[in-house]
Amino acid sequence: MISGVLLDLAGVLYDGETPIPGGSEAIARLRQTGLPLRFVSNTTRNRKQNILGQLARLGLPVRGDELFTPAQAARNWLGKNHRSAHLLVHPDLAADFLAADENAAGKVVIVGDAGEAFTYFALNEAFRLLVEGADLLALAPNRTFRDADGKLSLDAGAFVTALEFASQKQAVVLGKPSPAFFQLALDSMNCAAAEAVMVGDDAETDVAGALQAGCAHALLVRTGKYRPGDEGRYSPAPTATVDDIAAAVDWIIAARS
Amino acid sequence: MISGVLLDLAGVLYDGETPIPGGSEAIARLRQTGLPLRFVSNTTRNRKQNILGQLARLGLPVRGDELFTPAQAARNWLGKNHRSAHLLVHPDLAADFLAADENAAGKVVIVGDAGEAFTYFALNEAFRLLVEGADLLALAPNRTFRDADGKLSLDAGAFVTALEFASQKQAVVLGKPSPAFFQLALDSMNCAAAEAVMVGDDAETDVAGALQAGCAHALLVRTGKYRPGDEGRYSPAPTATVDDIAAAVDWIIAARS
Repeated sequence: MISGVLLDLAGVLYDGETPIPGGSEAIARLRQTGLPLRFVSNTTRNRKQNILGQLARLGLPVRGDELFTPAQAARNWLGKNHRSAHLLVHPDLAADFLAADENAAGKVVIVGDAGEAFTYFALNEAFRLLVEGADLLALAPNRTFRDADGKLSLDAGAFVTALEFASQKQAVVLGKPSPAFFQLALDSMNCAAAEAVMVGDDAETDVAGALQAGCAHALLVRTGKYRPGDEGRYSPAPTATVDDIAAAVDWIIAARS
Repeated sequence: MISGVLLDLAGVLYDGETPIPGGSEAIARLRQTGLPLRFVSNTTRNRKQNILGQLARLGLPVRGDELFTPAQAARNWLGKNHRSAHLLVHPDLAADFLAADENAAGKVVIVGDAGEAFTYFALNEAFRLLVEGADLLALAPNRTFRDADGKLSLDAGAFVTALEFASQKQAVVLGKPSPAFFQLALDSMNCAAAEAVMVGDDAETDVAGALQAGCAHALLVRTGKYRPGDEGRYSPAPTATVDDIAAAVDWIIAARS
């Protein structure tokens, strides 16, 4: 039984500004089934508003309450834990973090995919705060993403790992594969993990992550950052590996009937 | 029995351009014993000639044949393995690698402490070569070093780890704690590892590294990057932990009598 669908964005529906063929039709077909959908993205280069705008431009209208990003999870974390945030994130994302916590007890270094803002100076500044006692939050632990030029590029996880190695502290991960992140999206559609299916191009954070978080099924698409052999690289392995989002929707519709 | 002494430089004899008090007198006393000395440094921000010049300015004259650096080990490696080198190193070190190998069969990414040259662009360029099949050489795997301002800073190892994590390749380490690197210095003074003592401020690469390479003794000094508790953090533990280079020389002289 499938009662809800979780979908990754980058690498599943688009690469950079290029839509993946068949994506918008596939989402339309999925919406026609009446199944609730949630989009769970580890993209941290853009504010949520910008991601929604980009989806609309690509013919993929998504409501704000259907999209879950690690920055939201970070704001929730900060609200609960009362720390002042030192941001090592993309300038386009920083505006999402403007409100300072006046009751802050200590600092936390928050790392997203900062892109060109990953300078030695910025990384070293963050490292020194960790040495002085700050906590480390990773918006996303992804190794790579498929860049606008079609090649793989370094994602936030590489820089999180660098900071972990040097400081010998372990990051708290907020985005996928954090079970709490999947659960946030599932709860918002009143869907039990055991009745959910996840679709993603990252065999590690999307697929193994969702299955470890209790999702019934996780489909790996051969688009985006997918490289041959990925389906065998992480555990648990995908429920199925399919060509693209269109094939994933075929699989979901067939599984329901 | 002690027949030879290996010494680290940064954090033992100086921090940046500041000499560690008592260093030059301690080295003079050590030379008076007649024991052969070798300096094994993982510093990769400077060419060997510049390090020798810096030592002379600090009143620590060292002969070229007494100093071993990872760049030398890298040149040896390139000579044996015939690869063309893609350098992710400090601009001051690049000149040590000018000669291109006309028989190169494939590429190798060589990572040193590039400092401000660790930009996202440079790291991503190196990562993409790794994805395309290049090997990864780490001049040094150190987590941190004591910077000129007295604080810890990110060392090359953090960036090596970032590239390893994203590419899922393992780096070949050329400097300490590579047993081959220690052996190169030991061989040059005809000293068996079982009769050697190492002195360093890095409990991991200097101390545990030397002991794992077979050195009889390894002394940890409480200067440089040392932080309380370091003596218990890595295995094998130091033979002894002493205040500074002067106390280390006291220990060596006492151990011989």
